[in-house]
Amino acid sequence: MAERLTAEARKQALGAVPGWTEVQGRDAIGKTFVFKDFNEAFGFMTRAALVAEKMDHHPEWRNVYKTVEVVLSTHDAGGVTALDIEFAKAMNAIARLTA
Amino acid sequence: MAERLTAEARKQALGAVPGWTEVQGRDAIGKTFVFKDFNEAFGFMTRAALVAEKMDHHPEWRNVYKTVEVVLSTHDAGGVTALDIEFAKAMNAIARLTA
Repeated sequence: MAERLTAEARKQALGAVPGWTEVQGRDAIGKTFVFKDFNEAFGFMTRAALVAEKMDHHPEWRNVYKTVEVVLSTHDAGGVTALDIEFAKAMNAIARLTA
Repeated sequence: MAERLTAEARKQALGAVPGWTEVQGRDAIGKTFVFKDFNEAFGFMTRAALVAEKMDHHPEWRNVYKTVEVVLSTHDAGGVTALDIEFAKAMNAIARLTA
């Protein structure tokens, strides 16, 4: 099972995933993605959903039209793990291809 | 353009869409759908997204694993319109087919 990253390891890992920051008051990371329209936003979500299902690691996310707010945390580990960083990287890559 | 429903019309319309209620502090309606797993939840969202795009009327929604919290309101009209009721009905129908 993925282990919870130490504060230092998390900080260092976040340096490799542009736009992701620590979520205030929670052991989680988050990013708000803004696309051109709903088609792009939901296209991004669909591709990310397939990755999530394959990784068996799922996001908390909120979508309003062209905006997708994502929060990642590893429930079983009670905080941010390498799985979250990996998923954050995958989402950034999908967003680059989507825009 | 769809016109904002009166409080009475909204109340009556909600009677036809089981599970939908008024959102506290906003002129909006909401429902929380709970599915078996992420696959079902995102399947529901995907079908609803296609309807949304066709109606050109989009939800605010939040997904955490098997749960989808939806809020509907018509931005242009500043509140709940017949469009929201129509979309709520469509979502209920999709959820019935998904489960």
